[in-house]
Amino acid sequence: MKTYKVLALAIICLFLSIFEASASVGGDSLRADNRALRTRGAVEGLMRRNAPRLTFRPNEITPDSFSAWKAEMKDAMTRLMRHPDSQSEEPKMIKRVKRCGYTLEKWESYPLDSTVVPFLVLIPDGVDANNPAPAALCIPGFGQTKELLAGERNDNFNLEGEPDTTLIKNTMALDYVKAGIVAVAVDNPSFGELSDDGKADYIETSRFLLECDWSYLGLTSWQDRVILDWMKTQPEINPERIIVSGFSLGTEPLMVLGLLDDSIYAFVYNDFLCRTRERALTMDKPDQNGARPFPNSIEHLIPGFLLEFDFPDIVSTLAPRPVICTEGGMDRDFGIIEAAFSTAGAPENFEWHHYPMFADPSKRIQLEAMPSGIDRATFFRLANVDPPSHYFKSHLILPWLKKHLDKDGE
Amino acid sequence: MKTYKVLALAIICLFLSIFEASASVGGDSLRADNRALRTRGAVEGLMRRNAPRLTFRPNEITPDSFSAWKAEMKDAMTRLMRHPDSQSEEPKMIKRVKRCGYTLEKWESYPLDSTVVPFLVLIPDGVDANNPAPAALCIPGFGQTKELLAGERNDNFNLEGEPDTTLIKNTMALDYVKAGIVAVAVDNPSFGELSDDGKADYIETSRFLLECDWSYLGLTSWQDRVILDWMKTQPEINPERIIVSGFSLGTEPLMVLGLLDDSIYAFVYNDFLCRTRERALTMDKPDQNGARPFPNSIEHLIPGFLLEFDFPDIVSTLAPRPVICTEGGMDRDFGIIEAAFSTAGAPENFEWHHYPMFADPSKRIQLEAMPSGIDRATFFRLANVDPPSHYFKSHLILPWLKKHLDKDGE
Repeated sequence: MKTYKVLALAIICLFLSIFEASASVGGDSLRADNRALRTRGAVEGLMRRNAPRLTFRPNEITPDSFSAWKAEMKDAMTRLMRHPDSQSEEPKMIKRVKRCGYTLEKWESYPLDSTVVPFLVLIPDGVDANNPAPAALCIPGFGQTKELLAGERNDNFNLEGEPDTTLIKNTMALDYVKAGIVAVAVDNPSFGELSDDGKADYIETSRFLLECDWSYLGLTSWQDRVILDWMKTQPEINPERIIVSGFSLGTEPLMVLGLLDDSIYAFVYNDFLCRTRERALTMDKPDQNGARPFPNSIEHLIPGFLLEFDFPDIVSTLAPRPVICTEGGMDRDFGIIEAAFSTAGAPENFEWHHYPMFADPSKRIQLEAMPSGIDRATFFRLANVDPPSHYFKSHLILPWLKKHLDKDGE
Repeated sequence: MKTYKVLALAIICLFLSIFEASASVGGDSLRADNRALRTRGAVEGLMRRNAPRLTFRPNEITPDSFSAWKAEMKDAMTRLMRHPDSQSEEPKMIKRVKRCGYTLEKWESYPLDSTVVPFLVLIPDGVDANNPAPAALCIPGFGQTKELLAGERNDNFNLEGEPDTTLIKNTMALDYVKAGIVAVAVDNPSFGELSDDGKADYIETSRFLLECDWSYLGLTSWQDRVILDWMKTQPEINPERIIVSGFSLGTEPLMVLGLLDDSIYAFVYNDFLCRTRERALTMDKPDQNGARPFPNSIEHLIPGFLLEFDFPDIVSTLAPRPVICTEGGMDRDFGIIEAAFSTAGAPENFEWHHYPMFADPSKRIQLEAMPSGIDRATFFRLANVDPPSHYFKSHLILPWLKKHLDKDGE
């Protein structure tokens, strides 16, 4: 049974590879000069000809040159993110309530002039200035609020009443505080308390930011960075043990902060990992209307980002600091990141897990390159993604974190 | 009757101004510190605080400093458009057919590696190397093809059969050739012969371009520039009398070419004129779903463009060269452009017309600033726009062109 499935998948891939060859640069292969008549072919060709400048190539980067490569990556990310020089004001606490086993605080940060960005802080009982603890900056996914992460009702901005005990999954911050870790939960821009009168407006705000030569990820990572820097100053937090934990959309600011801030101790990457450039160039099968939309919306657009690097390159720069990836992807990419951790002298600090459905290696397809002309479902299948199983994987993360936090004389 | 209408509009404006005051930075006025909690308020505030650097201010720019300001504008546009250093190959003619009163040629240009961009050339009978004529580069609007402009069937890429005699409006190139002008008709990227297998894909291709740190307007203006440069080399064209004529979306590349290329003789701007930044900041009334979408799609997005200038500033830089605007806008903006032409010593070279519905000055509202919180219909009303009357205004343009082309010893 298993063998048949693998064989069937292999045949699909072969078919798709042939399709790709015949559909080069947007289906213009009928021209003898192989030029693209369709603008789609022209712009895909432009992206194909401009591979990321800083791609991590394990065979080319040695332990000696690894730091120099990381420095180049950091320079490029600094340039792309366009963070302001300073925040507008220091964060202030505005409310504190007691919960069972922890204290829940609401704070406000002021990352830009005329702007306020609230966040939640969950402090385990027994943790204080005399007994500081590790801390996790918890960044939610698309459509998630800081309140969900903290186990509160989604609209409980005043921290009134009881926590929402019906929540089972994705209470990232609550899971951490129960494990003795100070948890700081933030909102992504344009959602939850930061939404437009309750209306999520990721795309609208992204457009304004892009017009201003900034980006949704630039703003998000700046908001998160202000809060991360504040965390380092809090007496109940051990600044040597700050973790950044991102779910789904939240893995993007995680990567930015990781590359820009060497003081972060470890990273929890709770999403599947892929090459976003490869996805754009291959997930281009026409839909029922004949349209071939870009795979994601403009909250993911940072002009020029993909000319510099892609996600696996950035995760590679986090070496030798501990990283866990909890929802798989292509073994090809994990092999590259693994090589980076070996180059950095800490192979044991990178751990990854596939979705349960693809945990058995025989269920996974080994591809060196995605075939083009595929739809979202095929992309997910070939990238070993099981969308219904996309949630915060505490059961993998907490033991892994404990192992790393207990190291080095804790 | 008229007085009542004007009074009613004045009351609407007053109401809208009050609404604006109470709805500052995205409706967060309840906070005592006036900080925006909504990301929408934060990003609108960011745009408001970053006014265009090079806005034309009639009181500040003198005849002496006008050239220096234009040079700064040109530098900024050059940087924003990111045109390549050179085309891939020279254009080639691929077909020629005779039409009644003119010859119709199809050419191919090669603006980028691996890309082909066809265009049409309409040459009046009697025009040749011994008897060269003025020429117009004709750039269509959204959803229009070069074939429409030339009076051909939309899918007649092979120039077979007869022209489409059912077309009445928007046959810009045909109108020019009948007036004795060589007309060169181009497609905008992502539509017509450049579409994705017949599917318009402006947004999809724009996204790829933005990922590559380019833009739809950057590509469009580059494609048009290659063809404009080719026009200057054609023996049947008088290179001293090349006009750029843009309809609707086509006015954007018109402005780019005008600012980048001093050799263009005159400009036909067939759209209403507005400040696109002001539109984004005021046309933000929630729709029936509570959403406040940006007023246009990402084919209009050039990151950083609005930090430098807006449309009236660019049209102002075209002075002293002749410009006609055929579909109105706000008198405020025309006053500014008029001042630029006076500063450049050629007030007679700028002519503008309102939509027929607003030709009578008593029908127009005089505003110094648009009120915010308005919807598209209100914006159009306050900007004196009559959408059903949006078409190519040959009856205004041809006499105006004749007047200017006959000048200076023709």
